[in-house]
Amino acid sequence: MQKEVTLIRMDRNTREVMQGEVAREYPLTVMFNGEQLATLLCSPDDMENLAVGFLFSEGLIHSKEEIKGIALDEQRGIVRVNTDAAGGVDRELFMKRVITTGCGRGISFYNFADLDQKLQKVESALKVTPAQILEMMKAFQIRSEIYQKTHGVHGAALCDASGILLFKEDIGRHNAIDKIFGHCLRGDIPLADRIIMTTGRISSEILFKVAKRNIPILVSRSTPTDLAVGLAGELGITLVGFVRGGHMNVYAEEGRIG
Amino acid sequence: MQKEVTLIRMDRNTREVMQGEVAREYPLTVMFNGEQLATLLCSPDDMENLAVGFLFSEGLIHSKEEIKGIALDEQRGIVRVNTDAAGGVDRELFMKRVITTGCGRGISFYNFADLDQKLQKVESALKVTPAQILEMMKAFQIRSEIYQKTHGVHGAALCDASGILLFKEDIGRHNAIDKIFGHCLRGDIPLADRIIMTTGRISSEILFKVAKRNIPILVSRSTPTDLAVGLAGELGITLVGFVRGGHMNVYAEEGRIG
Repeated sequence: MQKEVTLIRMDRNTREVMQGEVAREYPLTVMFNGEQLATLLCSPDDMENLAVGFLFSEGLIHSKEEIKGIALDEQRGIVRVNTDAAGGVDRELFMKRVITTGCGRGISFYNFADLDQKLQKVESALKVTPAQILEMMKAFQIRSEIYQKTHGVHGAALCDASGILLFKEDIGRHNAIDKIFGHCLRGDIPLADRIIMTTGRISSEILFKVAKRNIPILVSRSTPTDLAVGLAGELGITLVGFVRGGHMNVYAEEGRIG
Repeated sequence: MQKEVTLIRMDRNTREVMQGEVAREYPLTVMFNGEQLATLLCSPDDMENLAVGFLFSEGLIHSKEEIKGIALDEQRGIVRVNTDAAGGVDRELFMKRVITTGCGRGISFYNFADLDQKLQKVESALKVTPAQILEMMKAFQIRSEIYQKTHGVHGAALCDASGILLFKEDIGRHNAIDKIFGHCLRGDIPLADRIIMTTGRISSEILFKVAKRNIPILVSRSTPTDLAVGLAGELGITLVGFVRGGHMNVYAEEGRIG
């Protein structure tokens, strides 16, 4: 996921040639049932899960059973996913897209109005305490901080009240979450009644992505946008942001934190 | 660009209802010569410049003179840009897109191979000293830090060796730079021999965007990816990253820093 490069470290008066590490960026083209769907710019790791999670998030795959084959050609930067669905993807649907705020995701195969009507309010009896969230964030930070600071990647984790169940990283904050979702779909790991934790900012798309998986609690080290706050309220998602220094801000559905 | 929301500030033992500010997120649909091109999720500010900068970056507008009209309908979230070009946009071209790492930009109307061949190496006699970059970053940080930390937006600036000429903000790092480019195109402000400064990570797309404008120096508070480092070398762009604590890392074309 990282690569050593030669760089020149400078301050006002000195310069020194040294080796440093930067995050790798890898263009991965997703072929879905033989059709070129999109090229994701990602961290070259866990790419089968990324492809499946991406297709799952975009509504093109609905269950593990549909998947008839996944083949990663790492040399050519292509991942082929085949399902038993007949025919290709509606090209007109492709045009209804949102160019997004998303690190790691740019196209959303929906428009807001459509999606908002289709999505159900998340129902879940899950409860966590502020102390549990703070502990979870501490563990999450330890796993993600080194990479986030020096290599510029985002972390995402699937958690329950007891802690982190699954942790993924990617240069794109959307990709990191899709790697979680792809892993869970392929491994029959349930997502309902779970918590998603991310290092990234919460825009409307991240909120939608999590809502589609029926996840009741979304926690970020960063801040949400106003649109994400509004949607979290509408969709019944507990939105926790700016978890740092022993504090957190709860922007919506605070009933699950207590 | 920001909005007040009610939130609950919690720590292990206490909870307090308070008002806080979050970044606004606004879906702006760009209509180009009557055709719906894309919806940008952006900070609702400077949106005419954003639309023009976006079209300029995507190669759909080449000069100020082509633009026959710009009309922003803020209530409906639509900006209409008309040029004297005949006909619409090639739909097949839309399909060759990259879903990106980009905060604020997701579709790139090119493929890497095409673009790489078309782009010329940037030629410029511009030189700056490390001290000038550190001063510039200090001024840039003062302008962007408050927003970046509390409201989650990115900053971008156009600079020359003497300091900041133009400063823009957006929830998307691509959008912030496109606001600069749109402003410059409309205001006849030259971009060659200038510096672009950003708070955001440098992925291949940011590098391409800057290369297309013939900008010789790109400076970020954050880190580049390996792909961006390689492209900067190929395209003759001085790439400076991780400018903090009185230091900076120069990843490519260090000859302009001295």
